Amino acid sequence: MGQIRNILFVMYDQLRHDYLSCAGHPTMRTPNFDRLAAMGVRFSHVYVQSPICGASRMSFYTGRYVHSHGAAWNNFPLKVGEMTLGDHLRPLGVDSWLIGKTHMKADAAGMARLGLAPDSVIGARVADCGFDVWVREDGLVAEGPEGFYDTKRSPYNEWLKSKGYPAENSWHVHANSGVDEQGDIASGWLLSNSLLPANIREDDSETPWLTSQALDFLADQSGKAPWLCHLSYIKPHWPYIVPAPYNTLYSAADVVPVVRSDAERVGAHPVFDAFMNNQPGQAFSKDGVRETVIPAYMGLIAQCDDQFGRLLDHLETTGQMDSTMIVLTSDHGDYLGDHWMGEKDLFHDPSVRIPLIIYDPRAQADGTRGTVCDALVEAIDLAPTFVEAMGGTPATHVLEGRSLVPWLHGQTPDWRDAVFSEYDYSGMAIAGNLGLSPREARLFMVFDGRWKLIHAEGGFRPMLFDLDTDPDELTDLGALPRHAEVIARLERRLADWARRPAQRTTISDETIVTMRGKSRRHGIIIGAWEAEDLAPDLRAKLQGKPAHDYRGV
Amino acid sequence: MGQIRNILFVMYDQLRHDYLSCAGHPTMRTPNFDRLAAMGVRFSHVYVQSPICGASRMSFYTGRYVHSHGAAWNNFPLKVGEMTLGDHLRPLGVDSWLIGKTHMKADAAGMARLGLAPDSVIGARVADCGFDVWVREDGLVAEGPEGFYDTKRSPYNEWLKSKGYPAENSWHVHANSGVDEQGDIASGWLLSNSLLPANIREDDSETPWLTSQALDFLADQSGKAPWLCHLSYIKPHWPYIVPAPYNTLYSAADVVPVVRSDAERVGAHPVFDAFMNNQPGQAFSKDGVRETVIPAYMGLIAQCDDQFGRLLDHLETTGQMDSTMIVLTSDHGDYLGDHWMGEKDLFHDPSVRIPLIIYDPRAQADGTRGTVCDALVEAIDLAPTFVEAMGGTPATHVLEGRSLVPWLHGQTPDWRDAVFSEYDYSGMAIAGNLGLSPREARLFMVFDGRWKLIHAEGGFRPMLFDLDTDPDELTDLGALPRHAEVIARLERRLADWARRPAQRTTISDETIVTMRGKSRRHGIIIGAWEAEDLAPDLRAKLQGKPAHDYRGV
Repeated sequence: MGQIRNILFVMYDQLRHDYLSCAGHPTMRTPNFDRLAAMGVRFSHVYVQSPICGASRMSFYTGRYVHSHGAAWNNFPLKVGEMTLGDHLRPLGVDSWLIGKTHMKADAAGMARLGLAPDSVIGARVADCGFDVWVREDGLVAEGPEGFYDTKRSPYNEWLKSKGYPAENSWHVHANSGVDEQGDIASGWLLSNSLLPANIREDDSETPWLTSQALDFLADQSGKAPWLCHLSYIKPHWPYIVPAPYNTLYSAADVVPVVRSDAERVGAHPVFDAFMNNQPGQAFSKDGVRETVIPAYMGLIAQCDDQFGRLLDHLETTGQMDSTMIVLTSDHGDYLGDHWMGEKDLFHDPSVRIPLIIYDPRAQADGTRGTVCDALVEAIDLAPTFVEAMGGTPATHVLEGRSLVPWLHGQTPDWRDAVFSEYDYSGMAIAGNLGLSPREARLFMVFDGRWKLIHAEGGFRPMLFDLDTDPDELTDLGALPRHAEVIARLERRLADWARRPAQRTTISDETIVTMRGKSRRHGIIIGAWEAEDLAPDLRAKLQGKPAHDYRGV
Repeated sequence: MGQIRNILFVMYDQLRHDYLSCAGHPTMRTPNFDRLAAMGVRFSHVYVQSPICGASRMSFYTGRYVHSHGAAWNNFPLKVGEMTLGDHLRPLGVDSWLIGKTHMKADAAGMARLGLAPDSVIGARVADCGFDVWVREDGLVAEGPEGFYDTKRSPYNEWLKSKGYPAENSWHVHANSGVDEQGDIASGWLLSNSLLPANIREDDSETPWLTSQALDFLADQSGKAPWLCHLSYIKPHWPYIVPAPYNTLYSAADVVPVVRSDAERVGAHPVFDAFMNNQPGQAFSKDGVRETVIPAYMGLIAQCDDQFGRLLDHLETTGQMDSTMIVLTSDHGDYLGDHWMGEKDLFHDPSVRIPLIIYDPRAQADGTRGTVCDALVEAIDLAPTFVEAMGGTPATHVLEGRSLVPWLHGQTPDWRDAVFSEYDYSGMAIAGNLGLSPREARLFMVFDGRWKLIHAEGGFRPMLFDLDTDPDELTDLGALPRHAEVIARLERRLADWARRPAQRTTISDETIVTMRGKSRRHGIIIGAWEAEDLAPDLRAKLQGKPAHDYRGV
């Protein structure tokens, strides 16, 4: 095992932490994910900084909390000036490449203000989250009566057309729809169609296509600079539909029991109540929906796993395993009906907790291969991990996470006492229904390994779960006076966090320490009465005889 | 009275809120400041966002808390991308000019990262806090054994040379030193020399020089675009020395009694104790120091006042009073021995509270001329005031202050319940002496009009003052159990503030509201079981007959 030359940073979208066989799923089979887990460390308690694509990803890419980078929801632009992975890695001689999805919206106004042209090298990187783009495919070629959700070009859709797929929007018509009994489009947007095979050749579907892009990239990079490659898949994110044979790999018999209780709906926290009663929550709470959707979701994961095997095989046969760090993770989970919820958005484990496996090829990691680390990990830990893996020193005044390298190398570092996550639902209809202003529709989670507090702006009480006694998070203790002390403690912990100097990013702690007591050595003399109060060399700077005396003028 | 065409934004440095005769000082005479107060509104309860030049000014110029902009101490760079006054005013067709001091350090690393050349128009503005520079003079041409405090050029020092002043550093030798009995330099850095006349012709000293620069600017601007001009004086900031005749205008008999008590030193809060015992605190607590320094400080203010009269006379005789908003303020105060302190740094009123007078030429302000407004005002309120005065709508997702225009126009708006200020002393020797890391050496003040809480990071108890019963802030109640409830309430208020979405600057609240419930109209369909669950126009987007059926492939 040698040193790390390259980092393959693989992200799936909406992959639950517990839908890997190595994580204990009783029916899901992920032999290739497990293969990585056997070579690396599986982190079992990993939390995203926000359970929503855009905000979560901006935290992965900046290494900073959402409260710090401000891109708090999908399509809230990441402000110009925020440093991203590329900014941290390029000074180390490492390129940062993107293959797939970022869900990043560029700060066009900020770029215009600073005169950054989108077609300049720097402007293009700023507009693409700091990456050089091998291929950017955000993966939602959705169209409604008011136009497309995403007006960027879709390289995947263009590729489908070049392959002879006949529809204008083959992403929808072929990759994400089946065919019904009448021969009409059976859209994957409709959950009742989930078990139909997608109307596309399997190897033309999104996951194999992106994997092929990655293999092209690997072939192209030979002999070039070291790289981090962010290979970022759209799947198993909805639409929940998958081509044959994956659509029949799993059936209702493989669906694990739902995690919910009738008691959750009684006296529910108003924000939780509103999310349970929105469309995804209602849909996934109906009989038969989980049994239809989850097998498709599992099929999508199986396809991801097979394609991951293709990647591993390639790295092995080309001799790159000794020099490549491999990271596998997701941007958030999926409730899939647990807690009467669909989608993500809130902070129960199915939503906020993610899988994370890291393979470090170096000999120092030999002792931890195949082990599980249960430290409290945050998504923002990856950025400093990458910097350290590449031989750099993480800029701790910018990066708010902690490098995971010590864990990979079998050490037990002093570690954080809590993880934080946030959710800004100000842009959702729910906020309006609850009568909330955009500043009020925000949630914060603090979890200390036992207690999970959800603080809600807008005048609501907090939610509280005790994961020691209630690991399924079925009982919200936030309204009970007997937990006032725990709540107060976690609220204080959240306040401490909120006061952190997150924007003091232009000067390092080390530089600050060197400033201490130095201004007098540069002639700033405050509080001296007479020359005798000064050190001789400083005194000398003040003395002499003026060439002219203007007092009589 | 017409509309506002121009804004003259005058800032003094280290001018205490109570050293104006219109503010009730019993011996200080400021007829020209008072003249402005008679034409405008004097705000009596105005607080800086940080009692230190650099951090405070970055809040004035960005309209944002220090916790938001991150330039938390002198020479901590203001990060590239932070919007400043010029960014808010230029879209309104208003130029933003600088004459004098900003104490801004450019984010050179950030500029290099974004490819912003300092000699480009945009780069120069970013490097100068968003201003176009008429003349930038930060005013501290100090030199010690380890070199100059400020390595930028000093236009004032160059000008002195051009006028024939013979010293290499005439700023020190002439403008800020006297001559002792032996004919040697008597440096103004040494407090014992404060009452000597500075060895310079009065009209060549700093305050008249900068005023002349302003008059040149005014002459040059005739017929050009509307402007905001930030006329930013160095004085009455130390070195405390002033040319004749101002050095003899005031004497020890004019010095008001010191505000301090022996009880303050007993069981003092460790941070307060450390500041009392640093060099400025010790110096100003010695007998005779206040009586020597304060008359010089008052002389400097008197000179500022006279020069302000020169400006007002010019605006009147040139007919510009009807179209010019005039603002007079300071970046922080000066303890001058009160509370056993010198300098600023902490949150007693002499340090954190500033003068603010605003003259609005418009007829709507006629009803408030000569009045005093006691609303809780923050320094960050000026930026939105300027935007509104120029006919714009303040960007409330960026600017954290509130426009003062309603107060100027005799209205009583719903207003804030507390003001906030911060102090980051991580770069001071005191932090090291207290054993604090750079992240711990930080203070926050929250003041609700009665109670002033100072929260200290680093594990210290808070400080608390009740200004209703103790207007001189002589009794720290922060250690007393009977005030636990008040402390808890203010700590919660501080926590609420700290969790604000200060970095969500790339999207306005109005835009967020328009997003609500709109993603489905762009084809993002989550939680629909079948086509009948969709509106007909949306359903139509999903339907049709595919040109090819690939399922058998």
